[in-house]
Amino acid sequence: MPTEVRLTRRVQFHETDAAGIVHFSCFFRYMEEAEHALWRSVGLSIAPGNGIGWPRVAAAFEYHSPLRFEEEFDVIIRIDAITSRTIRYTCTITRGETSIATGTLKIVCVSKRDGEPFRAMEIPADITSRLSSS
Amino acid sequence: MPTEVRLTRRVQFHETDAAGIVHFSCFFRYMEEAEHALWRSVGLSIAPGNGIGWPRVAAAFEYHSPLRFEEEFDVIIRIDAITSRTIRYTCTITRGETSIATGTLKIVCVSKRDGEPFRAMEIPADITSRLSSS
Amino acid sequence: MPTEVRLTRRVQFHETDAAGIVHFSCFFRYMEEAEHALWRSVGLSIAPGNGIGWPRVAAAFEYHSPLRFEEEFDVIIRIDAITSRTIRYTCTITRGETSIATGTLKIVCVSKRDGEPFRAMEIPADITSRLSSS
Amino acid sequence: MPTEVRLTRRVQFHETDAAGIVHFSCFFRYMEEAEHALWRSVGLSIAPGNGIGWPRVAAAFEYHSPLRFEEEFDVIIRIDAITSRTIRYTCTITRGETSIATGTLKIVCVSKRDGEPFRAMEIPADITSRLSSS
Repeated sequence: MPTEVRLTRRVQFHETDAAGIVHFSCFFRYMEEAEHALWRSVGLSIAPGNGIGWPRVAAAFEYHSPLRFEEEFDVIIRIDAITSRTIRYTCTITRGETSIATGTLKIVCVSKRDGEPFRAMEIPADITSRLSSS
Repeated sequence: MPTEVRLTRRVQFHETDAAGIVHFSCFFRYMEEAEHALWRSVGLSIAPGNGIGWPRVAAAFEYHSPLRFEEEFDVIIRIDAITSRTIRYTCTITRGETSIATGTLKIVCVSKRDGEPFRAMEIPADITSRLSSS
Repeated sequence: MPTEVRLTRRVQFHETDAAGIVHFSCFFRYMEEAEHALWRSVGLSIAPGNGIGWPRVAAAFEYHSPLRFEEEFDVIIRIDAITSRTIRYTCTITRGETSIATGTLKIVCVSKRDGEPFRAMEIPADITSRLSSS
Repeated sequence: MPTEVRLTRRVQFHETDAAGIVHFSCFFRYMEEAEHALWRSVGLSIAPGNGIGWPRVAAAFEYHSPLRFEEEFDVIIRIDAITSRTIRYTCTITRGETSIATGTLKIVCVSKRDGEPFRAMEIPADITSRLSSS
């Protein structure tokens, strides 16, 4: 710890809104894109399957400066805490030296069976181990 | 025939872009929202499940006038043709007397089994019958 | 106070993800749709224009239960606090008796001039008055 | 001619739907991302501003194979024709050797003035020249 990944990304036109800036909901997608890049960086995928899922239990952003079309920015995600069933990330978004936004995301490990509600379960040891290293 | 549904909808802020108008990709979502309303209107759901799926094989729009934030508009979808395996819709989007866009959508009935590619199959008779009536 | 609006909405297919549930980022769009309905309910529009804008400064959701395709749900938004320059909302999303999610949103009033950065400004008295009544 | 750009992209989770594949509307966003990369590749930006805009007048896709979460794919966009006021692109999306989809996009050059409807105008010579070369 901390495992951390930096994603460099450009604002796409469909992410902007009529105020001329990136819509605030897109920041949650940026944070998740970085989360999945972090998993891939340690050989894992958060893809649904194998009866395990990772629903989000909490997500938040504070916005400091707007992002505009075609601007390049960085999304840095870091694992903040891993408990037996949950993972908590913090995320910072920057454009050069400018702080754009800071966010948090908490996910929970659940077992998924067809027709049954999700049920929280312990994170498999291999996943905890990979996410804790590097 | 023709089965037809009219959906009245308001432009949401997240559907606009930095040009101040609805992003052109959103029209395909409007058309699909109307398609699903049409299926519900005859007691059907296009929801994945039961080993059957409805992937889109072709979609097109021609745009005549822009839509802006908070404007109300109508999406009229109509079944144009049903073959043994495909359904073709036409769609018109209007704001009052103004023609906004016209679109087409073609979908195919496929069998979905875990781990296998989609395979085109005959549309179940009950579905054809419901979509052809009313 | 409190001004409150309830929006009834159905899950659209494009809002779901490969986990079979509504993508967590869409809840922020639902909250904003309800916010704009609340403004319209007192004769206001949050549309950009007149040199005033309403960027989001903070947004958060806690997720309790998933939403699935075609489910109907309610979005209730309420003004929590209005200061001289900011407005804070709380939002609850329910499906029948089931609590789906609870969120918060804080926005700030800014003056927008072409080529200048946003600058926080006092909320016009008429807007505060309308949002505080009803 | 032809000016052509290849964009390599990975499927993001928020682009998938409950059928487990990329939502068909996202292909239009992929095509536009490639279009804007093409403009940047010749030193141009399609960003709104300077009183000129580029609304889409027609867009279409035919879908051959689905894309799934985390798959890598290529978006190749090529200028097909430039008239005095319009530009037409063709687009192919592939995953390795597999053809995923083929699309077309037609845009028109318009003058944008506050409070006036868009009006078609001649494409500035510098833009035609840059897009025709390389």
